[in-house]
Amino acid sequence: MAEIVAGGAVDVDASMAQWRARADAALTAALPALDTAPRRLHAAMRHAVLLGGKRMRPMLVYATGALFDAAPARLDAAAVAVELIHAYSLVHDDLPSMDDDALRRGQPTVHIAFDEATAVLAGDALQSLAFDAVALAPVEPAVALQLVRTLAEAAGAAGMCGGQALDLAATGAAKSLSISELEQLHALKTGALIRAAVRMGALIGHADDTALAHLDRYAAALGLAFQVRDDILDVEGDSATLGKTAGKDAAQAKATFPALLGMTHARERLDELSRTLADALAPFGAAAAPLAALGDYAVRRAH
Amino acid sequence: MAEIVAGGAVDVDASMAQWRARADAALTAALPALDTAPRRLHAAMRHAVLLGGKRMRPMLVYATGALFDAAPARLDAAAVAVELIHAYSLVHDDLPSMDDDALRRGQPTVHIAFDEATAVLAGDALQSLAFDAVALAPVEPAVALQLVRTLAEAAGAAGMCGGQALDLAATGAAKSLSISELEQLHALKTGALIRAAVRMGALIGHADDTALAHLDRYAAALGLAFQVRDDILDVEGDSATLGKTAGKDAAQAKATFPALLGMTHARERLDELSRTLADALAPFGAAAAPLAALGDYAVRRAH
Repeated sequence: MAEIVAGGAVDVDASMAQWRARADAALTAALPALDTAPRRLHAAMRHAVLLGGKRMRPMLVYATGALFDAAPARLDAAAVAVELIHAYSLVHDDLPSMDDDALRRGQPTVHIAFDEATAVLAGDALQSLAFDAVALAPVEPAVALQLVRTLAEAAGAAGMCGGQALDLAATGAAKSLSISELEQLHALKTGALIRAAVRMGALIGHADDTALAHLDRYAAALGLAFQVRDDILDVEGDSATLGKTAGKDAAQAKATFPALLGMTHARERLDELSRTLADALAPFGAAAAPLAALGDYAVRRAH
Repeated sequence: MAEIVAGGAVDVDASMAQWRARADAALTAALPALDTAPRRLHAAMRHAVLLGGKRMRPMLVYATGALFDAAPARLDAAAVAVELIHAYSLVHDDLPSMDDDALRRGQPTVHIAFDEATAVLAGDALQSLAFDAVALAPVEPAVALQLVRTLAEAAGAAGMCGGQALDLAATGAAKSLSISELEQLHALKTGALIRAAVRMGALIGHADDTALAHLDRYAAALGLAFQVRDDILDVEGDSATLGKTAGKDAAQAKATFPALLGMTHARERLDELSRTLADALAPFGAAAAPLAALGDYAVRRAH
């Protein structure tokens, strides 16, 4: 739960630091050990998850659960599971047949550090582990099943994988996508998992339907803001700051918000999303300060 | 439930035909439609699952559940889920970076019929769909969670993916594996999912621990028998009968039972497994006839 400091305000930085440390510890514990067979597979799985990462999705689980006074121990499994799905998707997205990326979080990608077959398998095994983890959540069985379904739907053809398929189809044909098609692509590719993180936190907190609807509006805007900012950073940034190869979107003629809207309008869209984030969180008052901070981060981050 | 014919014997062929049809119908219904976006991904998923396949794992779910009078409608979700995991694993195993197979079930593999990126994504989405499906099983929530965990553990690093990783490491180094290492490899690579199919049927039927232990011995022997027979067929068979490229194991210097034991001893091992199958099923009497028939099939099949 978010720390309450003098005057009833939430100490956002302290909460964030605690949640990040909590997520890292839970992920480390959930992953198979380096000293058991098959070691190369286990090493690749750990490389994919533990060498960096912002842990934004786990923090969303904790911050949303905290709104409803859900104890962090009830939230760990969902936090781990959503990050494992995110990590596996990066491993597969980086493959030569997909985005062909050699650098991720300032480290060699899994197929570079290991080999391509191991990268395919490590991603596959991380996905399985995510569902094993979430099924172990210390919550009522009916709630745990809702978590499994929320995660599975967000990860699959109607969510993240579907968005990645739309992205592949759009690559090299930037101008053939409308802005609403691009937003739909990202609503699936990155938005679905971010919405799942928020929804899982809320489900564990037994949120009512009204609260779920507000939080889903927040999460949808957050996912989109994150992507618009990502596209802007790819144009503005350099590889050292980003920890990945900059300028790849333009080189691959990817459909991006700056490519379709121009940089000025892309920044305006980000401002608009920022207002939606604030509006969706308004009903929760000061308790939503950590979620608001995550929104600010998505909008303003430099890497 | 298996059909009881005159004299109390089980009409195995009729049951098998019903279960196969039931599995095909349930799989067709579970897969995303061809006429919704992203169509190419959906088409690849359907190609992977619906163009053939023996449905051995779904039949194991139905046949095991029938031992405990579990209604087929309670078993469909687990039957679908285990086949979706199996199908996704074949798509990824066939990738150029893995076994590099162009033919599967007499059809072009997914990366040939579509493209490599789509094959990666279709496999990923099929795995997600498996967990969505099994979480929807019309059984008590606590049982459904056991199914999720059974499937996740069988699919992941401690099961199928782990076995595939051991297999990759062994390829090209046939003589460096002992026979017990080879059996361990297959216990994970193909055995884990077959054991999960049997266990899920038994869990849905509320089997007690003694029954679970007998059935697990059956399933472990079945998985191994299936693989020994597969290796023998790769030596004996031709591509047209097998529906996949024959002789690939030797060409790739794969560790196989014939390579390690010679053909005569490989066939003897199969006979031994056949006796284990009969022994493990003995406590269940005539009701286990469909499981016995599946064992006979694994041992004797020509493709």
